[in-house]
Amino acid sequence: MGGMTTATTPDTHPLVEKHAADLDAAAAALAARSYFSRYPESPSPRVYGEGAAEQGKAAYEAHLGKPFAALADQPTDGTAVGDEVSPYGPVLGVTYPHLDVDAAVAAAEAAMPTWRDAGARVRAAVCLEVVDAINKRSFEMANAVMHTSGQPFVMSFQAAGPHAQDRALEAIVAGLVEQERVPASVVWEKPGKDRQGNPAPLRMQKDYRVVPRGLALVIGCNTFPTWNSYPGLFASLVTGNPVIVKPHPRAVLPLAISVDAARTVLREAGFDPALVQLAAEGDGEGLAKTLAERDEVTIIDYTGGPGFGGWLEENGAARGQLVYTEKAGVNTVVVDSTDNLRGVLGNLAFSLSLYSGQMCTTPQNVYVPRDGVDTDEGHLSFEEFGQRLGAAIGKLTGDDAKAVELLGATVNEGVRTNAASLGDLAQEAGGTVVLDSREVSHPAYPDAVVRAPGLVAIDASREDVYTRECFGPVTFLIGTASTEQSLAQFRDTVREHGAMTAAVYSTSEDVLDAAREAAADAGVALSENLTGQVFVNQTAAFSDYHGTGANPAANAAYVDAAFVANRFRVVTARRHV
Amino acid sequence: MGGMTTATTPDTHPLVEKHAADLDAAAAALAARSYFSRYPESPSPRVYGEGAAEQGKAAYEAHLGKPFAALADQPTDGTAVGDEVSPYGPVLGVTYPHLDVDAAVAAAEAAMPTWRDAGARVRAAVCLEVVDAINKRSFEMANAVMHTSGQPFVMSFQAAGPHAQDRALEAIVAGLVEQERVPASVVWEKPGKDRQGNPAPLRMQKDYRVVPRGLALVIGCNTFPTWNSYPGLFASLVTGNPVIVKPHPRAVLPLAISVDAARTVLREAGFDPALVQLAAEGDGEGLAKTLAERDEVTIIDYTGGPGFGGWLEENGAARGQLVYTEKAGVNTVVVDSTDNLRGVLGNLAFSLSLYSGQMCTTPQNVYVPRDGVDTDEGHLSFEEFGQRLGAAIGKLTGDDAKAVELLGATVNEGVRTNAASLGDLAQEAGGTVVLDSREVSHPAYPDAVVRAPGLVAIDASREDVYTRECFGPVTFLIGTASTEQSLAQFRDTVREHGAMTAAVYSTSEDVLDAAREAAADAGVALSENLTGQVFVNQTAAFSDYHGTGANPAANAAYVDAAFVANRFRVVTARRHV
Repeated sequence: MGGMTTATTPDTHPLVEKHAADLDAAAAALAARSYFSRYPESPSPRVYGEGAAEQGKAAYEAHLGKPFAALADQPTDGTAVGDEVSPYGPVLGVTYPHLDVDAAVAAAEAAMPTWRDAGARVRAAVCLEVVDAINKRSFEMANAVMHTSGQPFVMSFQAAGPHAQDRALEAIVAGLVEQERVPASVVWEKPGKDRQGNPAPLRMQKDYRVVPRGLALVIGCNTFPTWNSYPGLFASLVTGNPVIVKPHPRAVLPLAISVDAARTVLREAGFDPALVQLAAEGDGEGLAKTLAERDEVTIIDYTGGPGFGGWLEENGAARGQLVYTEKAGVNTVVVDSTDNLRGVLGNLAFSLSLYSGQMCTTPQNVYVPRDGVDTDEGHLSFEEFGQRLGAAIGKLTGDDAKAVELLGATVNEGVRTNAASLGDLAQEAGGTVVLDSREVSHPAYPDAVVRAPGLVAIDASREDVYTRECFGPVTFLIGTASTEQSLAQFRDTVREHGAMTAAVYSTSEDVLDAAREAAADAGVALSENLTGQVFVNQTAAFSDYHGTGANPAANAAYVDAAFVANRFRVVTARRHV
Repeated sequence: MGGMTTATTPDTHPLVEKHAADLDAAAAALAARSYFSRYPESPSPRVYGEGAAEQGKAAYEAHLGKPFAALADQPTDGTAVGDEVSPYGPVLGVTYPHLDVDAAVAAAEAAMPTWRDAGARVRAAVCLEVVDAINKRSFEMANAVMHTSGQPFVMSFQAAGPHAQDRALEAIVAGLVEQERVPASVVWEKPGKDRQGNPAPLRMQKDYRVVPRGLALVIGCNTFPTWNSYPGLFASLVTGNPVIVKPHPRAVLPLAISVDAARTVLREAGFDPALVQLAAEGDGEGLAKTLAERDEVTIIDYTGGPGFGGWLEENGAARGQLVYTEKAGVNTVVVDSTDNLRGVLGNLAFSLSLYSGQMCTTPQNVYVPRDGVDTDEGHLSFEEFGQRLGAAIGKLTGDDAKAVELLGATVNEGVRTNAASLGDLAQEAGGTVVLDSREVSHPAYPDAVVRAPGLVAIDASREDVYTRECFGPVTFLIGTASTEQSLAQFRDTVREHGAMTAAVYSTSEDVLDAAREAAADAGVALSENLTGQVFVNQTAAFSDYHGTGANPAANAAYVDAAFVANRFRVVTARRHV
């Protein structure tokens, strides 16, 4: 593909040369699905520089209690919104200009032709420059995400910073590669003969022009405002579409910072900042629906609940919109046997504890045979396995001061209610509470509600309970007749209710094979025997697909060809030569 | 991409080696969008063999008045359907077993795992073998399509035979390439250090498995039963999905022959013929809706009217189905000026006459400045241009015996009504009939209703009339204030109402540039100054995209990456190494 450009791409922008090698390296990694990371995940001063953490915190604090001035040049109806309260307690007090939607849509559409005609490689280089600019604000972002999502600080730095930035770059190169697969021009020559039988080929020049679909909308979520928004944002932008970013009303600041960075780079690179606009809203305004109902909107990326996600899909179909959704599911672990019990328990305890189970990838359903599991520490009964897992969680989260650095804070009342109701849930399900969700006191933020994971043991027959998503620090230990039943339930429940992740623990190759078959049937990625420092709820950009698009939890994956290939179209102009 | 295989592909099937070089050559042509054809379009005995035409006709005639026995092994409810009547007059009298839908769905799903696990390259080779088998039946197919669609014979041979087969191969290699972009397996190695500071990378083996979405449904149309069905059929099949083909009740035989060929090859290749099944229905049964409402159906390809197409899109969104539709539009020609009037008139007359304007790509709206056009034969007024075009059509279609070989027969009452109502239409629109649609007598088929193209001149202000699709031999000559207005109307009407094709005639590079901009904005492919043996209503497989997916006429294009990339998903299994 080297050297191919779109017909309208002169490749003349200075950022093209600056980023050419980096884009090529990222594209090669994406094709190979090998390890690749541009943005260091360590918040160490040795990596990000002495004082970076302090400067980032100060930059975050400078936003508090004030209007977010950097977006004052967006078209606004003159009102301001902003209701963010940190899950750790403090009121943020940041206000954001409220979009004049008509004017914003018009501005986005007006900005599009120049961006379209700049060509794919210029767009990719500008997008990468945007992500680099966001990376420089990683500590500011970490504080903003911590205090909107409730993530613990280090996770907030990593997941909302470098990991999200790597996912952004992944989307950028995926979009670039896909556009550059389209040749700029070809001379098509069909063999033929004239009436005398002499060769007389038909020759046509065909110019293929990559065109964007039109205005794109990104709808952010509360828990992962950047990580879940960047793939759609940059996939749409790199393919030529202007983007309106509608953050969750309780997690605006991280996307306001991101949009500010994008607009600054776009402006400096000679493009219209209206290519990326922030549509902040007050709680309950329903701005996402208002925007989704605009006929100008052609692409929607959404992370959130299945109710509104389903509405977006149907509403979008009626309007010819592309709608990419990540909704909800029942992430599953099948425990059969292990030769490293300590590794299993440690790994699972960490997976369940991280961010108090508030990841879309946290396991909810852990299938364990009622007869128990064989381990390197002997056979454990179902009850013993539950107790050991509970103990591992207790050990990991027993010290409040350390625990909060792993658990973070609960993000909303729904999570708090789930965490506080394990007894009721167990009673309803005819089960038992193996481990209650412990309330943890945050030494620095007394108003934060912090919860350690809880475990409820129930029987496999109670699908009515465990096939509902129970978001937050609640895990079901589901007793089955056998690993065979565990796998069957895994397959059937994920096919019907969806899942972002799945894991299996077994020493038997036959069981692992059967788990792979069940995962393939269910359409969910499988992690096998994770006992170390890789966790089922984490996926690596450039290598792990996030979601599969093959079960009801999400209709797309970060980032495959299907995620980017339909965000642009090809318009041919042909003529005789 | 060479050498990469999916994890479950041993590449051991004998057809893989047989077709390897051909698949690679086709893939290279598709990447380059250069000229490529596997199946010769000439029906000459020098190409297809002495007696091939006669044998094909005999094979067609052997179907008439009988049950279609080759599909007797499909699951059936015991009833038979079949109401086909040739647009040329004869009743076909073929009956088809009516599917037992429950049993057919179950059979398709049961056939899927083996097909999935065969791997992409085996599937592609088997699919190519199917198309080769269909190619051998091209004369039988030509008769079947002629007598269901009303296409003239040579067109029926070419469009429903080799051209459709090339589109099938295009879909096959597009799907193969897309699947082979996914590596089978990778060792992911993340740099890291142990507590002593020694290198201790995290290493994971990740196996990527291509999995199909599930049961696919192809809904055929009356006018192009094979050409419009093969891309979806083979795109779904090569990506691992079983397919149920629901033909138009008046054009069953061409798809029955195709499904028979597919099932025969599948069986011989060791696969379950239930991977491809025919769902014939009686007129008015509504079987497409019944099938689309099955939750097992995950992919739908549809060609037909916008009403049902829109329903499929919305119904599909609610079920998480992928729905690819080609509906209707207002194909457009902008006439500005020419240095080859004779070429323009000859080319346009042919485009309008071919199959009596019953192609989804036939121009409907021809914009001409009211002040007329400059030509190499001097300035022509609007009226003179219309008269000259009418004369060219008259010359091309004036001899009944020759004309029927170009016009074919009208396919249904809607077309006949449109053709017979030009006077009313002109009166309604305040316009004039420039050329009435002449009734042509078919020398061989007295019952055929054959119509030559008609022309109605109306004013650009009458959008209410010319933005409706008026299917069949009816073309509007639309008088505009200027070429500028022509281009603006072209852009706006196609954005709103869709188009499969567009053309422009001008000697001015500025006008051509403006037309390219308008086409890019409207999202429709543009043919410039066609005056020879390439026609706006024809697209070449491997080079021309059919449709763009960028305007309301169709939400997809034959065949780009987006058409195939989402028909399969990738399921990862990862573990430490």
